[in-house]
Amino acid sequence: MKLHETARKGIETIREDRRYGARELSLLALDVLVDVVETSTTVEPTRLLGELRRATTDLESVRPSMAPIANAVRRVQADLPGILEASGGLLELKRDVLRRIDEEKMSIKESTEKIVDYAVPLLSGKRVMTHSYSSTVLEVLLKAEGSVPSVTVTESRPLFEGKRLAKRLSAAGIPVTLITDASAGHFISEVDIVLVGADSILPDGSVVNKIGTLLLALAARERGIPFHVVSDTYKWAERVELEEKGPEEVSAKPLSGVQVRNVYFDRTPAHLVSSIVTELGVFTPARFSSAMKERPART
Amino acid sequence: MKLHETARKGIETIREDRRYGARELSLLALDVLVDVVETSTTVEPTRLLGELRRATTDLESVRPSMAPIANAVRRVQADLPGILEASGGLLELKRDVLRRIDEEKMSIKESTEKIVDYAVPLLSGKRVMTHSYSSTVLEVLLKAEGSVPSVTVTESRPLFEGKRLAKRLSAAGIPVTLITDASAGHFISEVDIVLVGADSILPDGSVVNKIGTLLLALAARERGIPFHVVSDTYKWAERVELEEKGPEEVSAKPLSGVQVRNVYFDRTPAHLVSSIVTELGVFTPARFSSAMKERPART
Repeated sequence: MKLHETARKGIETIREDRRYGARELSLLALDVLVDVVETSTTVEPTRLLGELRRATTDLESVRPSMAPIANAVRRVQADLPGILEASGGLLELKRDVLRRIDEEKMSIKESTEKIVDYAVPLLSGKRVMTHSYSSTVLEVLLKAEGSVPSVTVTESRPLFEGKRLAKRLSAAGIPVTLITDASAGHFISEVDIVLVGADSILPDGSVVNKIGTLLLALAARERGIPFHVVSDTYKWAERVELEEKGPEEVSAKPLSGVQVRNVYFDRTPAHLVSSIVTELGVFTPARFSSAMKERPART
Repeated sequence: MKLHETARKGIETIREDRRYGARELSLLALDVLVDVVETSTTVEPTRLLGELRRATTDLESVRPSMAPIANAVRRVQADLPGILEASGGLLELKRDVLRRIDEEKMSIKESTEKIVDYAVPLLSGKRVMTHSYSSTVLEVLLKAEGSVPSVTVTESRPLFEGKRLAKRLSAAGIPVTLITDASAGHFISEVDIVLVGADSILPDGSVVNKIGTLLLALAARERGIPFHVVSDTYKWAERVELEEKGPEEVSAKPLSGVQVRNVYFDRTPAHLVSSIVTELGVFTPARFSSAMKERPART
Protein backbone atom coordinates (compact mmCIF):
# COMPACT_ATOMS: atom_id res chain seq x y z
CA MET A 1 0.00 0.00 0.00
CA LYS A 2 1.87 3.10 -1.18
CA LEU A 3 0.87 6.58 -0.13
CA HIS A 4 0.47 9.40 -2.62
CA GLU A 5 3.43 11.74 -2.80
CA THR A 6 1.49 14.60 -1.19
CA ALA A 7 0.88 12.56 1.96
CA ARG A 8 4.46 11.24 2.03
CA LYS A 9 5.78 14.79 1.75
CA GLY A 10 3.49 15.88 4.59
CA ILE A 11 4.89 13.12 6.80
CA GLU A 12 8.47 14.14 5.95
CA THR A 13 7.65 17.77 6.74
CA ILE A 14 6.54 16.72 10.21
CA ARG A 15 9.64 14.55 10.64
CA GLU A 16 12.05 17.32 9.67
CA ASP A 17 10.23 20.19 11.35
CA ARG A 18 12.13 22.21 13.96
CA ARG A 19 9.77 25.16 14.18
CA TYR A 20 6.61 23.86 15.71
CA GLY A 21 5.50 22.26 18.91
CA ALA A 22 3.49 19.07 19.28
CA ARG A 23 0.10 20.76 19.07
CA GLU A 24 0.75 22.37 15.70
CA LEU A 25 2.30 19.21 14.32
CA SER A 26 -0.70 17.14 15.40
CA LEU A 27 -2.90 19.50 13.34
CA LEU A 28 -0.50 18.98 10.40
CA ALA A 29 -0.71 15.20 10.92
CA LEU A 30 -4.50 15.39 10.58
CA ASP A 31 -3.95 17.36 7.36
CA VAL A 32 -1.90 14.42 6.09
CA LEU A 33 -4.98 12.20 6.58
CA VAL A 34 -6.99 14.78 4.62
CA ASP A 35 -4.37 14.53 1.86
CA VAL A 36 -4.69 10.75 1.83
CA VAL A 37 -8.46 10.99 1.32
CA GLU A 38 -8.18 13.70 -1.31
CA THR A 39 -5.37 12.14 -3.36
CA SER A 40 -6.53 8.53 -3.15
CA THR A 41 -7.29 7.03 -6.57
CA THR A 42 -8.78 3.79 -5.32
CA VAL A 43 -12.40 2.90 -6.04
CA GLU A 44 -12.51 0.41 -3.14
CA PRO A 45 -13.69 1.79 0.25
CA THR A 46 -11.64 -0.81 2.13
CA ARG A 47 -8.52 0.15 0.17
CA LEU A 48 -9.01 3.78 1.19
CA LEU A 49 -9.16 2.65 4.80
CA GLY A 50 -5.96 0.69 4.20
CA GLU A 51 -4.26 3.82 2.92
CA LEU A 52 -5.44 5.76 5.97
CA ARG A 53 -4.18 2.98 8.25
CA ARG A 54 -0.81 3.10 6.51
CA ALA A 55 -0.57 6.88 6.98
CA THR A 56 -1.64 6.51 10.62
CA THR A 57 1.07 3.93 11.24
CA ASP A 58 3.71 6.21 9.70
CA LEU A 59 2.49 9.23 11.65
CA GLU A 60 2.43 7.33 14.95
CA SER A 61 6.20 6.95 14.87
CA VAL A 62 7.22 10.08 12.98
CA ARG A 63 8.02 12.18 16.09
CA PRO A 64 8.59 9.80 18.99
CA SER A 65 8.77 12.56 21.63
CA MET A 66 5.41 14.05 20.65
CA ALA A 67 2.50 11.99 21.90
CA PRO A 68 -0.32 14.16 20.52
CA ILE A 69 0.57 13.38 16.90
CA ALA A 70 0.00 9.66 17.44
CA ASN A 71 -2.97 10.33 19.72
CA ALA A 72 -4.75 12.52 17.16
CA VAL A 73 -4.40 10.15 14.21
CA ARG A 74 -5.23 7.13 16.37
CA ARG A 75 -8.46 8.69 17.56
CA VAL A 76 -9.57 9.21 13.96
CA GLN A 77 -8.36 5.73 13.03
CA ALA A 78 -10.42 4.16 15.82
CA ASP A 79 -13.63 5.54 14.31
CA LEU A 80 -12.99 4.51 10.71
CA PRO A 81 -14.53 0.99 10.83
CA GLY A 82 -17.77 2.46 12.19
CA ILE A 83 -17.75 5.19 9.55
CA LEU A 84 -17.17 2.60 6.81
CA GLU A 85 -20.05 0.49 8.08
CA ALA A 86 -22.43 3.46 8.16
CA SER A 87 -21.43 4.83 4.75
CA GLY A 88 -23.25 4.11 1.52
CA GLY A 89 -20.30 4.17 -0.85
CA LEU A 90 -16.90 5.67 -1.57
CA LEU A 91 -17.95 9.30 -1.93
CA GLU A 92 -19.99 9.22 1.23
CA LEU A 93 -17.15 7.48 3.05
CA LYS A 94 -14.71 10.17 1.97
CA ARG A 95 -17.08 12.90 3.09
CA ASP A 96 -17.61 11.27 6.49
CA VAL A 97 -13.90 10.64 7.05
CA LEU A 98 -13.10 14.27 6.20
CA ARG A 99 -15.84 15.36 8.60
CA ARG A 100 -14.34 13.17 11.35
CA ILE A 101 -10.85 14.61 10.75
CA ASP A 102 -12.29 18.09 10.87
CA GLU A 103 -14.01 17.34 14.18
CA GLU A 104 -10.67 16.20 15.57
CA LYS A 105 -8.98 19.43 14.47
CA MET A 106 -11.80 21.48 15.97
CA SER A 107 -11.48 19.54 19.19
CA ILE A 108 -7.75 20.37 19.44
CA LYS A 109 -8.43 24.03 18.75
CA GLU A 110 -11.26 24.19 21.27
CA SER A 111 -9.00 22.57 23.85
CA THR A 112 -6.52 25.39 23.39
CA GLU A 113 -9.26 27.97 23.90
CA LYS A 114 -10.25 26.29 27.16
CA ILE A 115 -6.62 26.11 28.30
CA VAL A 116 -6.25 29.82 27.59
CA ASP A 117 -9.31 30.50 29.77
CA TYR A 118 -7.87 28.48 32.65
CA ALA A 119 -4.33 29.82 32.31
CA VAL A 120 -4.87 33.57 31.90
CA PRO A 121 -6.05 34.17 35.51
CA LEU A 122 -2.87 32.44 36.82
CA LEU A 123 -0.73 35.07 35.10
CA SER A 124 -2.44 38.26 36.16
CA GLY A 125 0.17 40.82 37.23
CA LYS A 126 2.97 38.26 36.96
CA ARG A 127 6.28 38.65 35.14
CA VAL A 128 6.54 35.46 33.10
CA MET A 129 9.51 33.41 31.93
CA THR A 130 9.01 30.88 29.15
CA HIS A 131 11.23 28.58 27.09
CA SER A 132 11.46 28.03 23.35
CA TYR A 133 8.26 28.30 21.28
CA SER A 134 4.94 26.80 22.33
CA SER A 135 1.85 27.74 20.34
CA THR A 136 -0.31 27.19 23.43
CA VAL A 137 1.91 29.47 25.53
CA LEU A 138 1.72 32.04 22.73
CA GLU A 139 -2.10 31.90 22.71
CA VAL A 140 -2.20 32.28 26.49
CA LEU A 141 0.19 35.24 26.51
CA LEU A 142 -1.62 37.00 23.64
CA LYS A 143 -4.86 36.68 25.58
CA ALA A 144 -3.17 37.85 28.80
CA GLU A 145 -1.74 40.94 27.07
CA GLY A 146 -2.23 43.96 29.29
CA SER A 147 -2.29 41.92 32.50
CA VAL A 148 1.23 40.48 32.11
CA PRO A 149 3.87 43.17 32.81
CA SER A 150 6.69 41.37 30.94
CA VAL A 151 7.77 38.10 29.36
CA THR A 152 11.33 36.74 29.41
CA VAL A 153 11.98 34.26 26.61
CA THR A 154 14.96 31.90 26.29
CA GLU A 155 16.42 31.71 22.80
CA SER A 156 16.28 27.88 22.77
CA ARG A 157 19.33 26.41 21.15
CA PRO A 158 20.16 24.94 18.76
CA LEU A 159 17.72 26.62 16.34
CA PHE A 160 16.56 29.63 18.40
CA GLU A 161 12.77 29.08 18.29
CA GLY A 162 12.58 31.46 21.24
CA LYS A 163 13.41 34.37 18.93
CA ARG A 164 10.27 33.63 16.93
CA LEU A 165 8.14 33.68 20.07
CA ALA A 166 9.80 36.92 21.22
CA LYS A 167 8.98 38.59 17.89
CA ARG A 168 5.35 37.44 18.00
CA LEU A 169 4.88 38.72 21.55
CA SER A 170 6.60 41.99 20.81
CA ALA A 171 4.41 42.53 17.73
CA ALA A 172 1.40 42.15 20.04
CA GLY A 173 2.67 44.94 22.29
CA ILE A 174 3.91 42.72 25.14
CA PRO A 175 7.24 43.84 26.71
CA VAL A 176 9.66 41.02 25.87
CA THR A 177 13.23 40.22 26.90
CA LEU A 178 15.26 37.59 25.03
CA ILE A 179 18.01 35.77 26.91
CA THR A 180 20.36 32.84 26.26
CA ASP A 181 19.32 29.47 27.69
CA ALA A 182 22.33 29.62 30.01
CA SER A 183 20.93 32.84 31.56
CA ALA A 184 17.71 31.33 32.87
CA GLY A 185 19.19 30.74 36.32
CA HIS A 186 20.23 34.38 36.59
CA PHE A 187 17.06 35.98 35.22
CA ILE A 188 14.70 33.77 37.23
CA SER A 189 15.14 36.34 40.00
CA GLU A 190 13.44 38.94 37.78
CA VAL A 191 10.23 36.97 37.12
CA ASP A 192 7.30 35.72 39.20
CA ILE A 193 6.25 32.61 37.33
CA VAL A 194 7.45 30.14 34.68
CA LEU A 195 5.02 28.98 31.99
CA VAL A 196 5.92 26.37 29.38
CA GLY A 197 4.19 24.07 26.94
CA ALA A 198 4.60 20.31 26.67
CA ASP A 199 5.26 17.83 23.91
CA SER A 200 4.12 14.86 25.99
CA ILE A 201 3.07 14.10 29.57
CA LEU A 202 3.97 10.71 31.03
CA PRO A 203 2.05 8.52 33.52
CA ASP A 204 4.30 9.62 36.41
CA GLY A 205 3.27 13.24 35.73
CA SER A 206 6.63 14.19 34.26
CA VAL A 207 6.65 16.60 31.34
CA VAL A 208 8.52 16.10 28.08
CA ASN A 209 9.25 19.42 26.38
CA LYS A 210 11.97 21.21 24.39
CA ILE A 211 15.38 20.62 25.91
CA GLY A 212 16.19 23.25 28.53
CA THR A 213 12.76 23.11 30.16
CA LEU A 214 14.11 21.02 33.05
CA LEU A 215 16.66 23.73 33.89
CA LEU A 216 13.92 26.38 34.08
CA ALA A 217 11.99 24.09 36.41
CA LEU A 218 15.05 23.68 38.65
CA ALA A 219 15.61 27.44 38.66
CA ALA A 220 11.94 28.07 39.53
CA ARG A 221 12.10 25.66 42.47
CA GLU A 222 15.34 27.24 43.74
CA ARG A 223 13.68 30.62 43.62
CA GLY A 224 10.39 29.34 45.06
CA ILE A 225 8.14 30.46 42.21
CA PRO A 226 5.46 28.45 40.35
CA PHE A 227 6.29 26.34 37.32
CA HIS A 228 3.14 25.88 35.23
CA VAL A 229 2.69 23.70 32.16
CA VAL A 230 -0.06 24.30 29.59
CA SER A 231 -1.00 21.10 27.81
CA ASP A 232 -4.12 19.51 26.44
CA THR A 233 -4.90 15.96 27.52
CA TYR A 234 -3.93 14.69 24.05
CA LYS A 235 -0.34 14.94 25.20
CA TRP A 236 -0.72 12.05 27.60
CA ALA A 237 1.54 9.16 26.59
CA GLU A 238 2.46 5.81 28.12
CA ARG A 239 6.05 6.35 27.04
CA VAL A 240 8.06 8.49 24.64
CA GLU A 241 11.53 8.44 23.19
CA LEU A 242 13.63 11.63 23.49
CA GLU A 243 14.46 12.49 19.89
CA GLU A 244 18.00 13.35 18.88
CA LYS A 245 18.82 15.39 15.76
CA GLY A 246 21.97 15.96 13.74
CA PRO A 247 25.11 17.43 15.37
CA GLU A 248 25.45 20.06 12.61
CA GLU A 249 22.62 22.02 14.22
CA VAL A 250 24.83 22.50 17.30
CA SER A 251 28.16 22.97 15.52
CA ALA A 252 28.09 23.63 11.78
CA LYS A 253 31.75 22.66 11.54
CA PRO A 254 32.60 19.19 12.91
CA LEU A 255 35.05 19.46 15.82
CA SER A 256 37.85 16.96 15.43
CA GLY A 257 37.45 14.09 17.90
CA VAL A 258 34.56 15.76 19.72
CA GLN A 259 31.22 13.99 19.92
CA VAL A 260 28.41 16.52 19.52
CA ARG A 261 25.02 15.58 21.05
CA ASN A 262 21.76 17.23 20.05
CA VAL A 263 18.93 15.75 22.12
CA TYR A 264 15.79 17.80 21.47
CA PHE A 265 13.68 17.15 24.54
CA ASP A 266 14.10 16.69 28.23
CA ARG A 267 11.86 15.29 30.93
CA THR A 268 10.91 17.47 33.88
CA PRO A 269 9.94 15.31 36.86
CA ALA A 270 6.49 15.82 38.41
CA HIS A 271 7.88 17.12 41.71
CA LEU A 272 9.15 20.25 39.91
CA VAL A 273 5.79 20.97 38.25
CA SER A 274 3.32 23.21 40.13
CA SER A 275 0.39 22.58 37.82
CA ILE A 276 -0.68 21.28 34.45
CA VAL A 277 -3.28 23.53 32.86
CA THR A 278 -5.47 21.44 30.53
CA GLU A 279 -8.77 21.87 28.68
CA LEU A 280 -10.38 20.03 31.61
CA GLY A 281 -9.00 22.41 34.24
CA VAL A 282 -5.88 22.97 36.35
CA PHE A 283 -4.30 19.84 37.88
CA THR A 284 -1.31 18.95 39.97
CA PRO A 285 0.77 16.38 38.06
CA ALA A 286 -0.45 13.61 40.42
CA ARG A 287 -4.12 14.59 39.96
CA PHE A 288 -3.64 14.88 36.21
CA SER A 289 -2.10 11.43 36.15
CA SER A 290 -4.99 9.87 38.11
CA ALA A 291 -7.54 11.64 35.92
CA MET A 292 -5.90 10.26 32.79
CA LYS A 293 -5.66 6.74 34.18
CA GLU A 294 -9.29 6.72 35.34
CA ARG A 295 -10.88 8.14 32.23
CA PRO A 296 -12.72 5.87 29.78
CA ALA A 297 -10.63 4.36 26.99
CA ARG A 298 -12.04 6.88 24.47
CA THR A 299 -12.24 10.59 25.29
CA MET B 1 49.33 61.05 34.01
CA LYS B 2 48.84 59.39 30.60
CA LEU B 3 49.73 55.78 29.97
CA HIS B 4 51.76 54.73 26.96
CA GLU B 5 49.68 53.35 24.10
CA THR B 6 50.99 49.80 24.64
CA ALA B 7 49.64 49.71 28.18
CA ARG B 8 46.35 51.34 27.16
CA LYS B 9 45.92 48.75 24.43
CA GLY B 10 46.62 45.98 26.91
CA ILE B 11 43.90 47.29 29.21
CA GLU B 12 41.44 47.47 26.29
CA THR B 13 42.32 43.91 25.30
CA ILE B 14 41.36 42.74 28.78
CA ARG B 15 38.16 44.81 28.70
CA GLU B 16 37.03 43.41 25.35
CA ASP B 17 38.20 39.86 25.88
CA ARG B 18 35.59 37.08 25.63
CA ARG B 19 37.98 34.14 25.37
CA TYR B 20 39.71 33.90 28.69
CA GLY B 21 38.82 33.34 32.29
CA ALA B 22 39.84 35.47 35.25
CA ARG B 23 43.10 33.63 35.89
CA GLU B 24 44.48 34.20 32.39
CA LEU B 25 43.34 37.82 32.38
CA SER B 26 45.03 38.48 35.73
CA LEU B 27 48.29 37.28 34.14
CA LEU B 28 47.62 39.64 31.23
CA ALA B 29 46.96 42.47 33.71
CA LEU B 30 50.37 41.90 35.25
CA ASP B 31 51.82 42.07 31.72
CA VAL B 32 50.25 45.52 31.40
CA LEU B 33 52.27 46.61 34.46
CA VAL B 34 55.38 45.21 32.75
CA ASP B 35 54.47 47.29 29.68
CA VAL B 36 54.17 50.40 31.85
CA VAL B 37 57.66 49.89 33.24
CA GLU B 38 59.17 49.08 29.86
CA THR B 39 57.55 51.91 27.90
CA SER B 40 57.87 54.63 30.54
CA THR B 41 59.98 57.57 29.38
CA THR B 42 60.09 59.37 32.70
CA VAL B 43 63.39 59.94 34.51
CA GLU B 44 61.64 60.44 37.87
CA PRO B 45 61.21 57.28 40.03
CA THR B 46 58.08 58.76 41.69
CA ARG B 47 56.57 59.48 38.28
CA LEU B 48 57.08 55.83 37.28
CA LEU B 49 55.20 54.83 40.42
CA GLY B 50 52.47 57.30 39.48
CA GLU B 51 52.16 55.64 36.07
CA LEU B 52 51.94 52.21 37.72
CA ARG B 53 49.29 53.49 40.13
CA ARG B 54 47.31 54.87 37.20
CA ALA B 55 47.48 51.51 35.39
CA THR B 56 46.51 49.69 38.59
CA THR B 57 43.48 51.94 39.04
CA ASP B 58 42.36 51.29 35.46
CA LEU B 59 42.92 47.54 35.80
CA GLU B 60 41.01 47.35 39.09
CA SER B 61 37.80 48.31 37.37
CA VAL B 62 38.36 46.89 33.89
CA ARG B 63 36.45 43.62 34.51
CA PRO B 64 34.14 44.12 37.46
CA SER B 65 33.11 40.44 37.70
CA MET B 66 36.71 39.21 37.90
CA ALA B 67 38.24 39.76 41.31
CA PRO B 68 41.69 38.27 40.61
CA ILE B 69 42.60 41.00 38.12
CA ALA B 70 42.22 43.69 40.75
CA ASN B 71 43.72 41.45 43.43
CA ALA B 72 46.86 40.72 41.39
CA VAL B 73 47.66 44.32 40.48
CA ARG B 74 46.81 45.55 43.98
CA ARG B 75 49.22 43.11 45.57
CA VAL B 76 52.03 44.43 43.38
CA GLN B 77 50.91 48.00 44.00
CA ALA B 78 51.04 47.50 47.78
CA ASP B 79 54.75 46.64 47.59
CA LEU B 80 55.82 49.55 45.39
CA PRO B 81 56.51 52.14 48.11
CA GLY B 82 58.83 49.67 49.88
CA ILE B 83 60.57 48.82 46.60
CA LEU B 84 61.03 52.53 45.82
CA GLU B 85 62.50 53.15 49.25
CA ALA B 86 64.96 50.27 48.90
CA SER B 87 66.02 51.11 45.35
CA GLY B 88 69.07 53.15 44.43
CA GLY B 89 67.72 54.85 41.31
CA LEU B 90 65.45 54.52 38.31
CA LEU B 91 67.10 51.53 36.65
CA GLU B 92 67.27 49.60 39.90
CA LEU B 93 63.64 50.51 40.62
CA LYS B 94 62.55 49.23 37.23
CA ARG B 95 64.43 45.99 37.72
CA ASP B 96 62.94 45.44 41.18
CA VAL B 97 59.40 46.25 40.06
CA LEU B 98 59.71 43.83 37.13
CA ARG B 99 61.01 41.20 39.55
CA ARG B 100 58.04 41.77 41.85
CA ILE B 101 55.58 41.46 38.94
CA ASP B 102 57.32 38.27 37.88
CA GLU B 103 56.99 36.87 41.40
CA GLU B 104 53.30 37.59 41.28
CA LYS B 105 52.90 35.76 37.98
CA MET B 106 54.88 32.81 39.31
CA SER B 107 52.70 32.75 42.39
CA ILE B 108 49.52 32.52 40.26
CA LYS B 109 51.03 29.74 38.18
CA GLU B 110 52.22 27.81 41.22
CA SER B 111 48.75 28.13 42.73
CA THR B 112 47.32 26.43 39.67
CA GLU B 113 49.78 23.57 40.01
CA LYS B 114 48.74 23.06 43.61
CA ILE B 115 45.06 23.20 42.68
CA VAL B 116 45.69 20.55 40.04
CA ASP B 117 47.33 18.33 42.68
CA TYR B 118 44.34 18.70 45.01
CA ALA B 119 41.70 18.33 42.28
CA VAL B 120 42.97 15.37 40.27
CA PRO B 121 42.27 12.75 42.99
CA LEU B 122 38.65 13.97 43.24
CA LEU B 123 38.09 13.06 39.57
CA SER B 124 39.54 9.58 39.44
CA GLY B 125 37.17 7.29 37.52
CA LYS B 126 34.52 10.01 37.30
CA ARG B 127 32.68 11.17 34.20
CA VAL B 128 32.97 14.95 34.40
CA MET B 129 30.68 17.74 33.19
CA THR B 130 32.08 21.26 32.91
CA HIS B 131 30.85 24.61 31.64
CA SER B 132 32.42 27.12 29.26
CA TYR B 133 36.23 27.50 29.31
CA SER B 134 38.29 27.64 32.47
CA SER B 135 42.07 27.44 32.16
CA THR B 136 42.28 25.90 35.63
CA VAL B 137 39.71 23.24 34.74
CA LEU B 138 41.67 22.59 31.55
CA GLU B 139 44.92 22.10 33.52
CA VAL B 140 43.18 19.75 35.93
CA LEU B 141 41.61 17.65 33.18
CA LEU B 142 44.86 17.46 31.19
CA LYS B 143 46.61 16.18 34.30
CA ALA B 144 43.75 13.75 35.02
CA GLU B 145 43.88 12.33 31.46
CA GLY B 146 43.68 8.56 31.61
CA SER B 147 41.80 8.53 34.92
CA VAL B 148 38.77 10.49 33.67
CA PRO B 149 36.60 8.33 31.39
CA SER B 150 34.85 11.24 29.68
CA VAL B 151 34.20 14.97 29.81
CA THR B 152 30.91 16.63 28.80
CA VAL B 153 31.36 20.29 27.89
CA THR B 154 28.59 22.88 27.46
CA GLU B 155 29.06 25.14 24.44
CA SER B 156 28.59 28.31 26.54
CA ARG B 157 26.55 30.90 24.71
CA PRO B 158 26.81 33.51 23.46
CA LEU B 159 30.35 33.04 22.14
CA PHE B 160 30.81 29.27 22.49
CA GLU B 161 34.00 29.18 24.60
CA GLY B 162 33.06 25.58 25.41
CA LYS B 163 33.98 24.55 21.88
CA ARG B 164 37.53 25.74 22.48
CA LEU B 165 37.79 23.66 25.66
CA ALA B 166 36.32 20.63 23.87
CA LYS B 167 38.94 20.91 21.12
CA ARG B 168 41.80 21.22 23.62
CA LEU B 169 40.63 18.18 25.60
CA SER B 170 40.05 16.14 22.48
CA ALA B 171 43.54 16.99 21.18
CA ALA B 172 44.89 15.60 24.47
CA GLY B 173 43.12 12.30 23.86
CA ILE B 174 40.31 12.79 26.38
CA PRO B 175 36.88 11.54 25.19
CA VAL B 176 34.77 14.72 24.92
CA THR B 177 31.10 15.40 24.29
CA LEU B 178 29.88 18.90 23.39
CA ILE B 179 26.29 19.84 24.28
CA THR B 180 24.15 22.98 24.23
CA ASP B 181 23.80 24.84 27.53
CA ALA B 182 20.10 23.94 27.55
CA SER B 183 21.03 20.24 27.56
CA ALA B 184 22.90 20.27 30.88
CA GLY B 185 19.81 19.14 32.81
CA HIS B 186 19.38 16.14 30.53
CA PHE B 187 23.01 15.06 30.32
CA ILE B 188 23.68 15.44 34.05
CA SER B 189 22.34 11.89 34.34
CA GLU B 190 25.31 10.65 32.28
CA VAL B 191 28.06 12.12 34.48
CA ASP B 192 29.31 11.60 38.04
CA ILE B 193 30.64 15.01 38.95
CA VAL B 194 30.55 18.67 37.86
CA LEU B 195 33.77 20.68 37.86
CA VAL B 196 33.89 24.38 37.02
CA GLY B 197 36.23 27.33 37.45
CA ALA B 198 35.41 30.66 39.08
CA ASP B 199 35.82 34.30 38.21
CA SER B 200 35.27 35.47 41.77
CA ILE B 201 34.28 34.02 45.13
CA LEU B 202 32.25 36.17 47.51
CA PRO B 203 32.30 36.38 51.33
CA ASP B 204 29.13 34.26 51.59
CA GLY B 205 30.91 31.45 49.72
CA SER B 206 28.92 32.00 46.54
CA VAL B 207 30.75 31.55 43.24
CA VAL B 208 30.69 34.02 40.35
CA ASN B 209 31.44 32.28 37.05
CA LYS B 210 30.39 32.30 33.39
CA ILE B 211 26.64 32.51 33.04
CA GLY B 212 25.04 29.06 33.01
CA THR B 213 27.15 27.75 35.91
CA LEU B 214 24.22 28.15 38.32
CA LEU B 215 22.07 25.87 36.17
CA LEU B 216 24.73 23.13 36.25
CA ALA B 217 24.86 23.47 40.03
CA LEU B 218 21.06 23.10 40.26
CA ALA B 219 21.17 20.07 37.96
CA ALA B 220 23.98 18.49 40.04
CA ARG B 221 21.99 18.94 43.26
CA GLU B 222 18.85 17.47 41.67
CA ARG B 223 20.86 14.44 40.60
CA GLY B 224 22.76 14.24 43.90
CA ILE B 225 26.28 14.47 42.48
CA PRO B 226 29.16 16.72 43.62
CA PHE B 227 29.62 20.22 42.27
CA HIS B 228 33.28 21.21 42.67
CA VAL B 229 34.83 24.60 41.96
CA VAL B 230 38.55 25.05 41.25
CA SER B 231 39.73 28.50 42.22
CA ASP B 232 42.80 30.05 43.70
CA THR B 233 42.38 32.30 46.71
CA TYR B 234 43.09 35.37 44.55
CA LYS B 235 39.49 35.12 43.42
CA TRP B 236 38.18 36.18 46.80
CA ALA B 237 36.27 39.47 46.53
CA GLU B 238 34.20 41.58 48.90
CA ARG B 239 31.77 42.27 46.08
CA VAL B 240 31.58 42.11 42.31
CA GLU B 241 29.34 43.47 39.62
CA LEU B 242 27.92 40.99 37.08
CA GLU B 243 29.13 42.35 33.74
CA GLU B 244 26.73 42.73 30.82
CA LYS B 245 27.92 42.83 27.22
CA GLY B 246 26.34 43.92 23.92
CA PRO B 247 23.07 42.33 22.71
CA GLU B 248 24.58 41.70 19.26
CA GLU B 249 26.51 38.75 20.71
CA VAL B 250 23.17 37.06 21.45
CA SER B 251 21.29 38.16 18.33
CA ALA B 252 23.33 39.60 15.46
CA LYS B 253 20.17 41.14 14.01
CA PRO B 254 18.20 43.40 16.37
CA LEU B 255 14.70 42.01 17.00
CA SER B 256 12.12 44.74 16.67
CA GLY B 257 10.80 45.74 20.08
CA VAL B 258 12.60 42.91 21.87
CA GLN B 259 15.07 43.73 24.63
CA VAL B 260 18.07 41.39 24.40
CA ARG B 261 20.04 40.81 27.62
CA ASN B 262 23.59 39.47 27.67
CA VAL B 263 24.73 39.15 31.28
CA TYR B 264 28.04 37.29 31.30
CA PHE B 265 28.23 35.86 34.80
CA ASP B 266 25.94 34.31 37.36
CA ARG B 267 26.30 33.69 41.07
CA THR B 268 25.99 30.14 42.39
CA PRO B 269 24.98 30.19 46.06
CA ALA B 270 27.23 28.39 48.56
CA HIS B 271 24.62 25.76 49.42
CA LEU B 272 24.93 24.34 45.89
CA VAL B 273 28.74 24.08 46.04
CA SER B 274 30.26 20.84 47.35
CA SER B 275 33.79 22.13 47.57
CA ILE B 276 36.18 24.84 46.50
CA VAL B 277 39.54 23.43 45.51
CA THR B 278 42.23 26.05 46.12
CA GLU B 279 46.03 26.16 46.27
CA LEU B 280 45.66 25.87 50.06
CA GLY B 281 43.54 22.70 49.90
CA VAL B 282 39.94 21.61 49.50
CA PHE B 283 37.34 23.64 51.42
CA THR B 284 33.60 23.73 51.85
CA PRO B 285 32.37 27.22 50.88
CA ALA B 286 31.80 28.04 54.56
CA ARG B 287 35.30 26.90 55.56
CA PHE B 288 36.82 28.76 52.61
CA SER B 289 35.00 31.88 53.65
CA SER B 290 36.23 31.69 57.24
CA ALA B 291 39.77 30.98 56.09
CA MET B 292 39.71 34.07 53.87
CA LYS B 293 38.25 36.28 56.56
CA GLU B 294 40.76 35.09 59.17
CA ARG B 295 43.90 35.36 57.09
CA PRO B 296 46.34 38.24 57.53
CA ALA B 297 45.69 41.31 55.39
CA ARG B 298 48.55 40.38 53.02
CA THR B 299 48.94 36.83 51.70
